[in-house]
Amino acid sequence: MPITLGEIAQMVDGQLTGDPKILVQGAAIIRDAQTDEITLADSKAALTQLPGSQANAVLLSNNLQYTDLPNIRVENVHRAFANIVRHFHPPRQAGRPEISVDAHVSPTARIGERVSIHAGATIADGVVIGDHCTIYPGVHVMAGSKLAAAVTIFSNAVLYENTVVGENTIIHSNASIGVYGFGYETVDGKHQLSAQLGNVEIGADVEIGAGTTIDRGTYGSTTIGEGTKIDNQVMIAHNCHIGRHNCICSQVGIAGSCVTGDYVVMAGQVGLKDHLQVGAAARLGAQSGHMTDVEPGDTRMGTPSQPSREFWQSFSVWKMLPQLRRKFKELQQRVAALEEETRGADKRNAA
Amino acid sequence: MPITLGEIAQMVDGQLTGDPKILVQGAAIIRDAQTDEITLADSKAALTQLPGSQANAVLLSNNLQYTDLPNIRVENVHRAFANIVRHFHPPRQAGRPEISVDAHVSPTARIGERVSIHAGATIADGVVIGDHCTIYPGVHVMAGSKLAAAVTIFSNAVLYENTVVGENTIIHSNASIGVYGFGYETVDGKHQLSAQLGNVEIGADVEIGAGTTIDRGTYGSTTIGEGTKIDNQVMIAHNCHIGRHNCICSQVGIAGSCVTGDYVVMAGQVGLKDHLQVGAAARLGAQSGHMTDVEPGDTRMGTPSQPSREFWQSFSVWKMLPQLRRKFKELQQRVAALEEETRGADKRNAA
Amino acid sequence: MPITLGEIAQMVDGQLTGDPKILVQGAAIIRDAQTDEITLADSKAALTQLPGSQANAVLLSNNLQYTDLPNIRVENVHRAFANIVRHFHPPRQAGRPEISVDAHVSPTARIGERVSIHAGATIADGVVIGDHCTIYPGVHVMAGSKLAAAVTIFSNAVLYENTVVGENTIIHSNASIGVYGFGYETVDGKHQLSAQLGNVEIGADVEIGAGTTIDRGTYGSTTIGEGTKIDNQVMIAHNCHIGRHNCICSQVGIAGSCVTGDYVVMAGQVGLKDHLQVGAAARLGAQSGHMTDVEPGDTRMGTPSQPSREFWQSFSVWKMLPQLRRKFKELQQRVAALEEETRGADKRNAA
Repeated sequence: MPITLGEIAQMVDGQLTGDPKILVQGAAIIRDAQTDEITLADSKAALTQLPGSQANAVLLSNNLQYTDLPNIRVENVHRAFANIVRHFHPPRQAGRPEISVDAHVSPTARIGERVSIHAGATIADGVVIGDHCTIYPGVHVMAGSKLAAAVTIFSNAVLYENTVVGENTIIHSNASIGVYGFGYETVDGKHQLSAQLGNVEIGADVEIGAGTTIDRGTYGSTTIGEGTKIDNQVMIAHNCHIGRHNCICSQVGIAGSCVTGDYVVMAGQVGLKDHLQVGAAARLGAQSGHMTDVEPGDTRMGTPSQPSREFWQSFSVWKMLPQLRRKFKELQQRVAALEEETRGADKRNAA
Repeated sequence: MPITLGEIAQMVDGQLTGDPKILVQGAAIIRDAQTDEITLADSKAALTQLPGSQANAVLLSNNLQYTDLPNIRVENVHRAFANIVRHFHPPRQAGRPEISVDAHVSPTARIGERVSIHAGATIADGVVIGDHCTIYPGVHVMAGSKLAAAVTIFSNAVLYENTVVGENTIIHSNASIGVYGFGYETVDGKHQLSAQLGNVEIGADVEIGAGTTIDRGTYGSTTIGEGTKIDNQVMIAHNCHIGRHNCICSQVGIAGSCVTGDYVVMAGQVGLKDHLQVGAAARLGAQSGHMTDVEPGDTRMGTPSQPSREFWQSFSVWKMLPQLRRKFKELQQRVAALEEETRGADKRNAA
Repeated sequence: MPITLGEIAQMVDGQLTGDPKILVQGAAIIRDAQTDEITLADSKAALTQLPGSQANAVLLSNNLQYTDLPNIRVENVHRAFANIVRHFHPPRQAGRPEISVDAHVSPTARIGERVSIHAGATIADGVVIGDHCTIYPGVHVMAGSKLAAAVTIFSNAVLYENTVVGENTIIHSNASIGVYGFGYETVDGKHQLSAQLGNVEIGADVEIGAGTTIDRGTYGSTTIGEGTKIDNQVMIAHNCHIGRHNCICSQVGIAGSCVTGDYVVMAGQVGLKDHLQVGAAARLGAQSGHMTDVEPGDTRMGTPSQPSREFWQSFSVWKMLPQLRRKFKELQQRVAALEEETRGADKRNAA
């Protein structure tokens, strides 16, 4: 499906600079583009990488200028580029929604309109599934769970009993929602599991990554706020209340009963002790470990975590510690020499 | 199902202080309780949070006093509170045990009495499943595995060949038990997989979290001791011998051939190098990384780990490093000035 | 199946020193061997552990000597020991390849010769599966994916749309390949998911661990090079290009658009910031966190990472920080005393 640059400009309603007859065979990011492909630049930083690209044309944001390649300028460069990529790789037509004869749906479950439930999925007793939901193969929704409209659950995700999922939420493959909390009372040397009477409630417009695990509340609900995005392999323990519009990157671990405000950002592999309060719009740096509450808007790094600025100041000294230690020894010697001289001088004076 | 405080006191056999006619509509923890709900306090620390709760009554441990709310005192506050929560959210009646016609059970498998095997589970050749086991949908138990009585395996957990599981053990969703060990010999620039002839043996009363992975032994068994509790997303590599009654929190990674004693506690995101010995009752702090053996009873923190006390002492200096560096420079200048003066003085004296 | 030492020597074509009539009942590693079992030693370090073993015989590499136990010397000790273990635990005969009547295979999928597809697996529209592949129960291969010959996919792994897998590659249970990338544009306070038009392409002879997650490219492919081995619970984000013959240990997290050269080694729990270049044969220490590019062959540790040698130098000072601080205070006092004396002396001289 080759296409000319002129046709692409028309397709994305963009402003072409260059020969409209140039033939384009594909679309790829700057690093990967071949000699007959168009690429994109969405920032000034991206422009500086263009000279290293093999692309024969570039799609630019309206506010950027680049004269060394034929180019098309558009308002929303990512939306336009996605359209171009779709031209070269048209998405597979989704089948019409249907409940597979090989899905296992309890007669007491209530299923909405235009729902897809694929082969091998199980929908247990009393489950409610809203309109336009898609349940992929191997998903297991346990008894009493409630899915609002337009929820998508990818293969082999598991929802334990009484999980609640809001509209438009996406749950990726192999996620486990509503697992038992890790709480024990040790009696006579044996760890006895605490009560597991709660559930997980997930708001609307949430995305939950593959392999992520969320534990149910002990007596009530572990909750995930509306619009929050959770990456793959994140762990959220029992009784947590995660705020709205958080971004929680891969492999973050949040211990029990933590509460986060809205718009909190946690970078990869962050760890939180149990029972912490993290204020709105706080930002926790990659691999940082938190043992105390975080104020709204704070940016923290390190384990145990500190305000980022202080972390970087200490780290800059850490790097020179061996040199500082040498200089310290040298200074000790100079002081000893001075003491020798001074006391010697004193003695001479006293003599 | 509202109920009066007097009826609750009777239900949990507790001592009521306050108006028995107060109507209670639900039960929740201090942070979440609404104005018509009862909450609980299990410690003096919890008492200090009660003034901030909206609850209209509180369940107390016998040894606690609180006069600002109607209250019921009981011996085991968590057991009693669980009963109250169950009154408001009665658990769903479990179905009678049965082997689903949509489960795939090998004719050479031996299945005990009163076993549940749900739709979509597969039980391979030669597997033995004890009495009262529950196998949820999408669980796959590979050939030669042996489950003792009363084992519960949640959806989409996978047991590779010859896995052995002790009585009353719980394995959560999407766990993988008996995976190939990550061991290679590099021949002519290619990594060749080592032998994968062993298996995993899990003791009685163990709990294994969702998404946790345990690799099989190379020639023999990777073992998990009786009563040990393993949280979600833990990684235990090939040939490890984990002791009894360990508590291993979420996202811990234990490399190959490690051995732990009994009652070891590892906090979240801990990492262990291969071939380490961790003594009984050792405690490893969150995110700590271990490169040497750990003595019984030791508490360690940091990466590479140190005795906790030493870690905290070094960390307290880390935080003042920028300030120390400034003071060090200042001291250097003072010494230089002294040298100048002293040698000047010496010269004057010598003159 | 007991067997004599003489028979074992014949079986592995080795050179026996000791009584050929000794009866051997099993084979196990040094730590685990019982009194009637043979063990193995593959290095001088292993020899030093032999006196603590209960084994009644030992298999040795040709280049090793050990006189305190009957022994058999062979060229490839691991290959020979695996044969001995197989004698005691003969592997279960694999069934003849077949496509289970309980697998769900799209009529538009193209399936090669001698392929096994187990019960409960789903193979979606347009999928191509090469000869000699094995697809275990509960695997879901989404539309348009292509598997080359002799691929093995263990239970409950999920391949999203258009995943490409090379010859002889093994994917372990509960892995998720082709998940949506974690990229959002925030518009009016809502995080909007970026385009998800790409896929994952995995080379030949790759192994991917249980619970590992690999995100699809935004517009193109996330790629894993030939011969690369990836352990359990590793996270590889969108647009990454992982080189050939890498070893990526458990719980490593690699953020978006990173590129690694060949033969890179990452130890457990390593974290990489997005858009990093890691040069060939670089080695990243356990739990290290990388925020800048890594040169070929470099060995780095710490968070943020440093060259290993510098890390260890700083760490050796870190451990003595409390002591250094005390000595620094002492030095301050000595300098103050000197200042006092010197200025006192100056004054006396001046007087």
